[in-house]
Formats: sequence, structure tokens, C-alpha cells
Amino acid sequence: MISNCIFAFMIQPFDDTYFMKKALQEAEAAYKSGEIPVGAVIVIDNKIIARGHNLTETLNDVTAHAEMQAITAAANFLGGKYLQKCTLYVTLEPCQMCGGALYWSQISNIVYGARDMERGCINLNTKLHPKTTIKGGVLAEEASALMKQFFIERRNLN
Amino acid sequence: MISNCIFAFMIQPFDDTYFMKKALQEAEAAYKSGEIPVGAVIVIDNKIIARGHNLTETLNDVTAHAEMQAITAAANFLGGKYLQKCTLYVTLEPCQMCGGALYWSQISNIVYGARDMERGCINLNTKLHPKTTIKGGVLAEEASALMKQFFIERRNLN
Repeated sequence: MISNCIFAFMIQPFDDTYFMKKALQEAEAAYKSGEIPVGAVIVIDNKIIARGHNLTETLNDVTAHAEMQAITAAANFLGGKYLQKCTLYVTLEPCQMCGGALYWSQISNIVYGARDMERGCINLNTKLHPKTTIKGGVLAEEASALMKQFFIERRNLN
Repeated sequence: MISNCIFAFMIQPFDDTYFMKKALQEAEAAYKSGEIPVGAVIVIDNKIIARGHNLTETLNDVTAHAEMQAITAAANFLGGKYLQKCTLYVTLEPCQMCGGALYWSQISNIVYGARDMERGCINLNTKLHPKTTIKGGVLAEEASALMKQFFIERRNLN
């Protein structure tokens, strides 16, 4: 009984918040490079196997979203293109391009931070793989605050 | 009057069929590499500025569709990420990932060969950029025949 109580109060270090913080660190790296601050990590068995942040400006490439790079890096790590048993943590709801890539990857779980009402895959009805779960709202305020700060700063620079 | 008649019968070498043949050559290159045979070229002012073919197996990467590579290559050629005034020729209707990438690229025109009723961007209602036109059916039979041949061959190998 005592051991059960102790177990109940043990800290679980590897939860959604933990990994979303890692994705937020990627978003901050994007911010510092003058990129719209979106970051992502891909996790399997509580281990981060891929990281990515938005590089569309740096690479002059609309396909260089955080998720796309993380998908490519995770597949490279795994030696196979399907991301079954993997979870993507991304600070902003994926767009239809990234949602489409996630569909092909057959990834198990998508966890996003802030919603993207206009260009996100949910409102645009992008088809995800039937094996994929999606949930949002993890550290959403932090992700949104970083985006807002970026756009305010950019407006002031222009 | 005579010169008008001559003009009317002049051959226009750079039409949709011409460029789709170039995309089909890319699809054939994919076929030879054991890839689902889809090919693409991007054209501006009647000049091919980018080519790509499906490399998902070779690169172990679901994002390595013909269109994605052509988008990246075209942006690299132009030195900017927007593909205004460009036309994509692709042998198969783009999927929602590629449709999403084309949305971000603001490409002017998409010309595809064969329809993809199940996974194509039209039936999946992928949002294209308001500046983008899309049309299909150019050398569709040739594109479909190549796909069918590939899948028959692959079935016989297994």
C-alpha cells in the first residue's frame, strides 16, 4: 500500500509537456534565425529520434517546415520510411502539406501546441492515416506567445 | 493573309504535351529505379527549371515525391521560394502533401496527367492557392499505363 502511494506520487519525467518543451526549444531556435517559430521533435519509446524547426526563409524553400524535416530525420534514424510507434510533438497544428506527409508516414500520434484555425490540417480537413491519433493544446499558450512575439517584432522592423 | 495562314499552321513546340513528355521521362527514370513511376518538371517562360521523380524508396522518405523535389529545385534555381509564373507538369494528380506544398509556393499553374481518385488533392479537397489554376488529362493514358505496368511487374516479382 505504501509502495503504491509512493508510485502514485513519483514524477513521470517523460510526458507530453516534457517533449513539447523540447519542440518549443526548436521553435526558439527558428525564432533566433528569423524564421516563423515552429519546432518539432519525434519520439519513440520516450527517446527523441528527430528534431526540426522551420527553415523556409533560410533555405528559400516552402517545403522546409519543422515537421517535414523531423519526418525525414526520423525515417533516416529508423532506416525505414514508416513512423509507426512514433509520436510527433509540434508547437503549431500541422498544415495540409505536413498533415499529408504525416498521412504517408503512418505515424502513430500527433501532439500539437497551438491551433492554426486558418491553415491547419483540422479545419482544412486534411486526411490523416486511420492509424494516427491527434491531440492539441499542449503548452499552447507558450507556442502562441512565441508566434505573437515574432510577428510583433517583425512588424516593428518593417 | 498568306502569312496568317502560314502562322496558323506553324508548329508550336512548347505546349502542354511537350512538357508532359518531359515529366513522363522523369517517371520512367523512377520506374527504372524501382520507384512508383511519377515524374515532374517545373517550367517558366517555356524553359524547364526543375525536374524530379519519385524517390521515396531510394531515400526511405515519404516526403520525396516528384513534386516536392521539383518545388525545392525550382526555388533554388529562382533564388526565391515563390513559384509565381511557373507551371508544374506532373504525371499523376498531386496528393494532399504536394498540393499543400504547391499552396505555399503560390505556383501559377498545375498540369497533371492521370487522376488519382483515392489519394489525389481534388477528391481530398486540398486547398490550393487562389492564384493557382489546375488542369488534368494531359497524356493521362501514358501516365496510367506506366503506373499499371509498374504494379503488374511488382506483383509478379512478389
